Amino acid sequence: MGDPAGIGGEIILKALHQLSRKSIPLIIGDYSVINDHLRTIKTMSKRPHFKGFMEGGKGDVEFIDIGCIRGLRFGAIDGLYGQASYAYLIEALKLVFLGDVSAIVTCPISKASFHKGGISFPGHTEILAHFGGVTDYIMMMANKIMRVSLVTIHIPLKHVPEEITIERVFKCIALTHHSLRTYWGIGNPSIKVCGLNPHAGEHGIMGNEENAISEAINRAKSIGMEVGGPYPADTLFHSPDCHAYIAMYHDQGLIPVKTVDFRGTVNITLGLPFIRTSPGHGTGFDIAGKGIADPSGLVEAYRTAEEMCIKTS
Amino acid sequence: MGDPAGIGGEIILKALHQLSRKSIPLIIGDYSVINDHLRTIKTMSKRPHFKGFMEGGKGDVEFIDIGCIRGLRFGAIDGLYGQASYAYLIEALKLVFLGDVSAIVTCPISKASFHKGGISFPGHTEILAHFGGVTDYIMMMANKIMRVSLVTIHIPLKHVPEEITIERVFKCIALTHHSLRTYWGIGNPSIKVCGLNPHAGEHGIMGNEENAISEAINRAKSIGMEVGGPYPADTLFHSPDCHAYIAMYHDQGLIPVKTVDFRGTVNITLGLPFIRTSPGHGTGFDIAGKGIADPSGLVEAYRTAEEMCIKTS
Repeated sequence: MGDPAGIGGEIILKALHQLSRKSIPLIIGDYSVINDHLRTIKTMSKRPHFKGFMEGGKGDVEFIDIGCIRGLRFGAIDGLYGQASYAYLIEALKLVFLGDVSAIVTCPISKASFHKGGISFPGHTEILAHFGGVTDYIMMMANKIMRVSLVTIHIPLKHVPEEITIERVFKCIALTHHSLRTYWGIGNPSIKVCGLNPHAGEHGIMGNEENAISEAINRAKSIGMEVGGPYPADTLFHSPDCHAYIAMYHDQGLIPVKTVDFRGTVNITLGLPFIRTSPGHGTGFDIAGKGIADPSGLVEAYRTAEEMCIKTS
Repeated sequence: MGDPAGIGGEIILKALHQLSRKSIPLIIGDYSVINDHLRTIKTMSKRPHFKGFMEGGKGDVEFIDIGCIRGLRFGAIDGLYGQASYAYLIEALKLVFLGDVSAIVTCPISKASFHKGGISFPGHTEILAHFGGVTDYIMMMANKIMRVSLVTIHIPLKHVPEEITIERVFKCIALTHHSLRTYWGIGNPSIKVCGLNPHAGEHGIMGNEENAISEAINRAKSIGMEVGGPYPADTLFHSPDCHAYIAMYHDQGLIPVKTVDFRGTVNITLGLPFIRTSPGHGTGFDIAGKGIADPSGLVEAYRTAEEMCIKTS
């Protein structure tokens, strides 16, 4: 459910009508939050009937009520809400490690409420990596038009160039390649890699980090991967023709993928020992509880997780 | 015409059929290059009839033959070709300063041929600024979907953060604002400004260059401009709702504008004492002389220059 004061509960309710139901959705959150949202969603034709955990069948929705929220204030930053969203995630982690669920789809959390609640992780992804026992994980953002994996994510732009090493770029290529094979059943994925600088440095005239990027690409090619680059990033995304792009930093990768299909963009964490997706947007505190949130991102995140489960099962 | 060994001559020939002819196009280049292209363009229905300079009327095309190319080799890097494209531009500059032409539309030149020909300028824009007597000029990239002005352009990414000063950002906002009023007749332009860092720094957690950007925005607002930001760049471009965006660096601005409409993207130099546009693409040496070049960028550059002339006339 993510942060209870955000749009999580609302987009869950709305998304339920749009899911394919090849799988049984299990919601982990607070049932009181769902009730609060039901009062505001005018278009909700019928109250969903939730089954308990492991009690549902095809076409049903299961619910685990953590039950820690009373008197919810939408849009509020509150340590209790941070602790609640943390508890939802821990429950999901237990179930995925027990093999009782096939994938985790997370709704957005509030970094500020996490912080107030004494939870030291900056976000969902770091918690999942911590309990997954991995440090080699990467963020992929994807929609129906393109997939983009990121070498660096949430760091100041001025620190990006020093992070562009052969090892990091190669790791991102290799993990993306492996994931395309494993989760999307693409036998021989083709991958295109961005340069860091304008015009990919134009032969060293405008920066030389492309040397490390080229080395990483050569290493990938030497073991048979179909990888090209470094390409000038500005001319790379207008007619997508590969299975995934590798971007060097946050905006370089997220601008194209969100510009071509904002509502359908999904965040996928590659490298975890389980499947995890989430919508590309945030908690939407400014519109929470107003009944106007758009469930498209969550629907697409769920659909993507389902697709990844099917390919691997 | 730009570099004679590139696609300049070919896209000129093809573009002539698609121009509105509200104005009289004057081509400055080598007629021998046009002849070389005419042999390769299979779809060219009829040989254009060119009038001499100042001899044309409505519906005509004028040509000034600089006449310095013999035995052209398409795609070759050659100092002579660099000198030729320089000569074409100087001729255009003379005419625009004499008031004999209303705007300059440049086809791409080769930096390498410029260098070989002993021409120390890195490109067209720097020559135009030099002879225009200005240092305060900026690059805007535009198509029918959005306009983006750039605070920095062709510098290594690692030098971008130190260039993000209040003065530079403000200059870019002010020049863009002034140009939207002057050349596009927009009385009260609305402008949105990107942050530099992921999530525009997220309140200083991921970089603090947004402080300078905010100061520049406040300065613009204090004199009545409608300017907002700094906004996270990744979520800014999916549904354009302003007259221009201000991007901090090359890829941040060029990725969105080229991703949404690659063929129709035009480069506009703002701050020169005359109107200047060019296609967003390069010389196309790999396809030069093959008859397959796409004139859309030049058509759009000409159309844009025409639009800017009409608004100011």
